[in-house]
Amino acid sequence: MATSPVYPVPHLTTAMSGPLQDVEGHIIDQLAKIESWFRCQWRKTAAPFYASVDLRNAGFKIAPVDTNLFPAGFNNLNPAFEPLCIQAIQLAVEHLSNAVDRIVIVPENHTRNKFYMENIATLQGLIERAGFEVRLGSLIPDLDTTMEVELASGRSVHLQPLRRQGKRVVVDGFDPDLLILNNDLAAGRPEILEDIEQLITPLPQLGWSSRLKSVHFGFYRQVAREFAELLDIDPWLIDPMFRNCGEIDFMKGEGTSCLSSNVATLLAEIQKKYNEYAVKQPPFVILKADAGTYGMGVMTVHSVKDVMGLNRKQRTRMSASKAGQKVTKVIIQEGVYTDETWGNKGTVAEPVVYMIDHSVVGGFYRVHDKRASNENLNAPGMRFERLAFDDCCISPDKHQSPDAHPNRFYTYGVIARLALIAAAREKASLV
Amino acid sequence: MATSPVYPVPHLTTAMSGPLQDVEGHIIDQLAKIESWFRCQWRKTAAPFYASVDLRNAGFKIAPVDTNLFPAGFNNLNPAFEPLCIQAIQLAVEHLSNAVDRIVIVPENHTRNKFYMENIATLQGLIERAGFEVRLGSLIPDLDTTMEVELASGRSVHLQPLRRQGKRVVVDGFDPDLLILNNDLAAGRPEILEDIEQLITPLPQLGWSSRLKSVHFGFYRQVAREFAELLDIDPWLIDPMFRNCGEIDFMKGEGTSCLSSNVATLLAEIQKKYNEYAVKQPPFVILKADAGTYGMGVMTVHSVKDVMGLNRKQRTRMSASKAGQKVTKVIIQEGVYTDETWGNKGTVAEPVVYMIDHSVVGGFYRVHDKRASNENLNAPGMRFERLAFDDCCISPDKHQSPDAHPNRFYTYGVIARLALIAAAREKASLV
Repeated sequence: MATSPVYPVPHLTTAMSGPLQDVEGHIIDQLAKIESWFRCQWRKTAAPFYASVDLRNAGFKIAPVDTNLFPAGFNNLNPAFEPLCIQAIQLAVEHLSNAVDRIVIVPENHTRNKFYMENIATLQGLIERAGFEVRLGSLIPDLDTTMEVELASGRSVHLQPLRRQGKRVVVDGFDPDLLILNNDLAAGRPEILEDIEQLITPLPQLGWSSRLKSVHFGFYRQVAREFAELLDIDPWLIDPMFRNCGEIDFMKGEGTSCLSSNVATLLAEIQKKYNEYAVKQPPFVILKADAGTYGMGVMTVHSVKDVMGLNRKQRTRMSASKAGQKVTKVIIQEGVYTDETWGNKGTVAEPVVYMIDHSVVGGFYRVHDKRASNENLNAPGMRFERLAFDDCCISPDKHQSPDAHPNRFYTYGVIARLALIAAAREKASLV
Repeated sequence: MATSPVYPVPHLTTAMSGPLQDVEGHIIDQLAKIESWFRCQWRKTAAPFYASVDLRNAGFKIAPVDTNLFPAGFNNLNPAFEPLCIQAIQLAVEHLSNAVDRIVIVPENHTRNKFYMENIATLQGLIERAGFEVRLGSLIPDLDTTMEVELASGRSVHLQPLRRQGKRVVVDGFDPDLLILNNDLAAGRPEILEDIEQLITPLPQLGWSSRLKSVHFGFYRQVAREFAELLDIDPWLIDPMFRNCGEIDFMKGEGTSCLSSNVATLLAEIQKKYNEYAVKQPPFVILKADAGTYGMGVMTVHSVKDVMGLNRKQRTRMSASKAGQKVTKVIIQEGVYTDETWGNKGTVAEPVVYMIDHSVVGGFYRVHDKRASNENLNAPGMRFERLAFDDCCISPDKHQSPDAHPNRFYTYGVIARLALIAAAREKASLV
């Protein structure tokens, strides 16, 4: 704790920082009003157990571009903020309002992804230090005994088969009071978790087999409007516009006319806003699978031609999402430039904010020196570095300028919590 | 945040650390069981808004010796844990279950104590950063306008007169939803706070004008028994024995026979336990005002003779407590040696643990190079240094030895929370 390293912080290119400074200024000035509004939101709608939100900071605009309800990457957070995570976990479990002592985490099946398994080791350690007994209950189909995975950090995780016993699931005789899903269920809702009497969070209905990004961003649009009204700002400054298409078959080329017209419309809408704010860069949109994660099936599009002229490789990439699920629904999201760079080479950096219950507990930057400012950094085959935030995002300082580090990070925490409210409403709409 | 200094940590003299290592070992081994028990306690009895607990660590025993429900000293905590305080304040206010946006802190009147005023500045800053509007509402009788107090830290505090308006109290037109007392009301419960409709925490009944240490330690004795049963240890290892006397007039020498007989009985009881645990040091007891604070009227007593032969100066000191209240009730508490020392000179160190709601948020050591290991470090005229903990007390590490720093601090946090449960029950008994 005492020797927490000094984490490097990406520098925001300041050329276009006018309007965002405005947003940040509004946010720091109206701290008490904003937190009052958040408190009111959480009294109305319970926050998800945990979440991470990918942000893009264009200088003139800052917006969430993805909200993950099964966050990996806890191993990338600044170890100095582990106590904050521990306290937040205690609060999150308290909010479930049942007596919980024993917890099973259900991780992803991809045991060869050592980064992911480091995340699981960190998450398990945090929950144990919060005062719970924790086991890992795996959904790996053919697992019939404990699998130990040794990690580069010197730790190891013990995956045990999750088994059904009547209305309960157990792990080697360990009968949990609570299951925490860290598996996004992209391959579908597993039978073994259906109709169990134990608490389970997040709800399996929020897995990527049923969740749609367009639904989330529909809720977000409404949240952004309410928040913008509170601060008297243009909601566009914090909200990425989007459109979505129904059934598309990229390989057969079916449904692409919907795609083309939506891309054209959205690009025109963005251009209109860019004109309003004197943004000189060309607009772009991002195509993503509407149900999906891990940045598969993600494409940067600058014009309708880009969609019309997809080559076979691009079509194949767009078709396949995680767990081999075929992409049939697509969200077309306003592309938000990232104006944050790291180091002398101007490496592009993208902040990811982590939350447990309604508490922001830190985050990290994805940085990548081979990507441009209009490309998604969370894409297949990507080798990005992760730089932990040196700030926990909850400790603004009104005596410093709006873009000073504690305030920049606080603003990140505010925008990420707007996405968290959207996720909370999304969850509430299911129950 | 990034450049948090490395705080020096006092070193525990290890000569007599056998039994305590046992206690610490039990605590680290049974983390999940202990935290489960704490969760159960907080579901039954709400924690106070905040508290600080003075601990004494004798190597063979660790025990709370004072529980302050109006804690000063927030300025002495490690700045690295401010986010933890901010999160805990948010939780504490959430637990009050009313919508709270505006808060008035009611500080002590002694504006010349710059250390105390630094505490107020820190507390106000933390609550503001937690997202509330905060003013300072002073009880200073003749204050009729804002008094600005400039501090060595470069900050300043603005004390404003607290005024009554019907069933509410306000500060210059600022009508708070919640009053937080940081004034221990040693001079009595102020009329202005009686029968107001606003939330007030802690309850004025918990001020030192009505609270008795002997009542608190009566509750603590019961808590320590329950906890010792959970861990299967001797409750004495975590509980300071005590006896109390009713009306005593030190100046007139009235009531001293009760004092003498209680001192003799308690010294004999301690000797018996010392024999059981092969403790070679002589037993001692501490005399304190039963209602009081700030370590006034505190005396170390090794034998009945010490009480019989009080000179005039000692009697005068014992008679007067804070705010000039006359000491008439006395608590005789088992003296607990402090075996923690700091630096090469073997300076005596005493840990103080801070809690907000049921969360431990850090602490500091009082160190004093002119005091012996059997003397109270929080005494009048004392010049002690304060060393912030380098650990927040909530992040144990089962892979390290029970007396490794994170575990030593976790143990402090556990013992302090036992005193917090006692305070919670004390509070509940009033309502």
